[in-house]
Order: sequence, then structure tokens, then C-alpha cells
Amino acid sequence: MSKEKSENESSTSTETLLLPQDVLLSAGVHIGTRIKTKDMEPFIYKVRSDGLFVLDIKKIDERIRIATKFLSRFDPPKIVATAVRLYAREPVRKFCEITGATPVIGRFIPGLLSNPYYPGRIEPDVMLVSDPRADSQAVKEATSIGIPIVALCSTDNDFTNIDLVIPTNNKGRRALAVIYWLLARQLLRERNEIPPDGDIPLSIEDFEVKLTERFHHR
Amino acid sequence: MSKEKSENESSTSTETLLLPQDVLLSAGVHIGTRIKTKDMEPFIYKVRSDGLFVLDIKKIDERIRIATKFLSRFDPPKIVATAVRLYAREPVRKFCEITGATPVIGRFIPGLLSNPYYPGRIEPDVMLVSDPRADSQAVKEATSIGIPIVALCSTDNDFTNIDLVIPTNNKGRRALAVIYWLLARQLLRERNEIPPDGDIPLSIEDFEVKLTERFHHR
Repeated sequence: MSKEKSENESSTSTETLLLPQDVLLSAGVHIGTRIKTKDMEPFIYKVRSDGLFVLDIKKIDERIRIATKFLSRFDPPKIVATAVRLYAREPVRKFCEITGATPVIGRFIPGLLSNPYYPGRIEPDVMLVSDPRADSQAVKEATSIGIPIVALCSTDNDFTNIDLVIPTNNKGRRALAVIYWLLARQLLRERNEIPPDGDIPLSIEDFEVKLTERFHHR
Repeated sequence: MSKEKSENESSTSTETLLLPQDVLLSAGVHIGTRIKTKDMEPFIYKVRSDGLFVLDIKKIDERIRIATKFLSRFDPPKIVATAVRLYAREPVRKFCEITGATPVIGRFIPGLLSNPYYPGRIEPDVMLVSDPRADSQAVKEATSIGIPIVALCSTDNDFTNIDLVIPTNNKGRRALAVIYWLLARQLLRERNEIPPDGDIPLSIEDFEVKLTERFHHR
């Protein structure tokens, strides 16, 4: 069924993407894993001959638009964005800088949302997670306090407790930078803080984790 | 695991619901079917001794809020609401009357969205479907033109091509009236057309299919 498809086509191609397709493809936002969950099936474009499942670029683009429309309805600081994994940290930090969302970087401390006696407790109205598996504690707490969850999901994630899925490579360094940069820009566009074709003052590179960071604690 | 749960409790109970729990329960919005899909598992509260799967009232309420937040971002006439099944027709008609959405009642004519040569073609930006299975033609066309789909889903639906799920009994006459009434009211609240605790000028009864309608063609 997908035999004829090359990696550089999308399932449909007439509409304009938020970023040129070659930028998205070269960042590998469409690259999944060798595991495919049933939940993610509708977002999968094909399986490569080496067994890697590949996401549909068009659907990634669509869901970024949908998610930001939804997020634009919330008070900026009431959006909490989480990043346990290293490569998600700088993207989430920059996303929050640009959009006014509240970052939770690194380990998600149990009780941060759910323990009324925890002094640093925050009370967000919506959560954006980088990976439901890596950020499982965040998902658990958001679920327990009943706030909606938007999640970046790769081919191996399932949707339990996730309200809105953004299919994407949620593990790659460059892919995460591109996705959070796109989410930040689109969110400001949806809020009318910048024009519909406006840009943000940071580049995709600014959103990327610098490789030296691996050796520091920040 | 769910042995101790009575039908009249929700999984959590501290928050305020959009309608009193007894109103929701007596309308049967939580009543599913004897089939459970894996997709719907997170929304299922328990299985009754007669094998009927029951939805979590709290999650129904949460998703109505999420879906209306999302829908409130669209130009009212650019929201298309579909109802193939009889019991969904009057609720959808009234929902559209109140919210300015565009109704497609009864059979969904192939090409209505996707055929550029079809004279009655409409060009919505988002779709609300009453049941992804009964409204499968609508889902197919919305998917082909790439607009987001919000769907009422019961325990037996799967999420293929659905962007945002509202778990609910999507077959009962009274349940559908209650859900579309709630969606209409919440959508106007989200748009600030009525105050946060404001009401709409129609009652739940007004949203119900009258049983005599079964014998007419309208």
C-alpha cells in the first residue's frame, strides 16, 4: 500500500504547510520509532524498509494548528509546559519565554500540581507535555486535578489521558526545536500578538539544545 | 476494581459539573454500549453487571469544556454540525440555531465538502459529528479536505481521524438533547456572548426529537 511512497511526499500536498516541507523533513519531525501503537495508526504515513514508522507531515501540521487554537484560549501563565527529557528542555524553555507559559523542566516533582500542602504548588489550567511516557508524572497529576493535556506523541505513544495529540518525533534534538518553535509562533499568531504571517524574535537554532549542555547541570 | 462503585458516583466529585450530576445521569449521557474499544477505555468508568460499559460523567463534562473552548475559535458559520441519525437531528438543528453553526441533517451527500463542482458545496473550517460511525461520510470528507473533527463518541467508537473526542451516549434521544444543549450553552459562554453562568433561550426539552417526528419526513 505504501510501497510507492517516497519519504519526501506527504499524503496530500495542495495546502500550504506552516514551514516548507523540506525544513520539516530535514529536521526529522516525521521520524517515528520501530514501534507502532494502535492509537497512532491514523497519523502514520508509512513504514520504511528498515522497519521505522514514519509520520504524516500534513497531519503534524494540522495538529499544530489545532493545538495552538486550543491553547490560545488560556491565560498564558496558566499553560504549563513540561520537559523531562534533555532534548525537550531548551525547546520548552524557549517556548515558554516566547508565549508566557510556565515551564517545568527536568524531573516533575510529585505533588507539584496535586499536593495542596506543597509550597511550590502551581495551578495551571492546561498542560503541554513533550512525551506522555517520559512526562508520565506530569500526566498523572494533570489528570488527577482534571486539567486538559496536549501531548507530543510519536508512533510508540498511547493516548491514555491525553486530550489532544500532536503527532511528531518527540525524541530528536532538531525535531523538538522545530516543533516547539512552530508551536510558539503559531500560538502568538492565534492570539493575534503577531500577524497571521508574523514571526517570533528567536530562530529554530535558538530553540535547540546545545550539545555541550549535556555536560553541565543547569 | 470497580465492584464498589455505584452508578451514581463519579470518579472524582469535588468539582462543579456544568449540569447537576442527577440531571446528567437521568438523561443517560453516561450509558454506553456492550462494546468497548481500546480508544475509549480511558473514558470508561465501569462495566455494569449486565455487561454495559458506563462512561465517566466527570470526563464527559471536562471534554465538553475542552471542545467548546476549541470551537469558540472558529467563525460560527464555519462550524458544520452533522446528524445522520434521527435522534441527533433536532439536537443538532437547535445547536446550530443557537450558535450560528451550519447544520447538515440526514444523509451526508458525497461531495458536499470535497467536490469542487458540486453546486451546494460548503467550505467549513471545523466539523462536529454526532457519531463517527453513522456520520462516516462526513468524517471521510472532512478528513479529505483537512479540517479538524470533533466527535461525540460512545464506548464502541474508535478515534480514527477524530481530533477531539467528546465521550457520551451518542444514541439516546434524551442524552443527545442534553449534550447538544450543553455544547450550545458552553460555546456561547466561551465566546462571551452570554456570561460565564448565563443561559440560552431554549430548554433541554426544546433540543429533544419529538417522538411523533419519526412518522414524518421533514
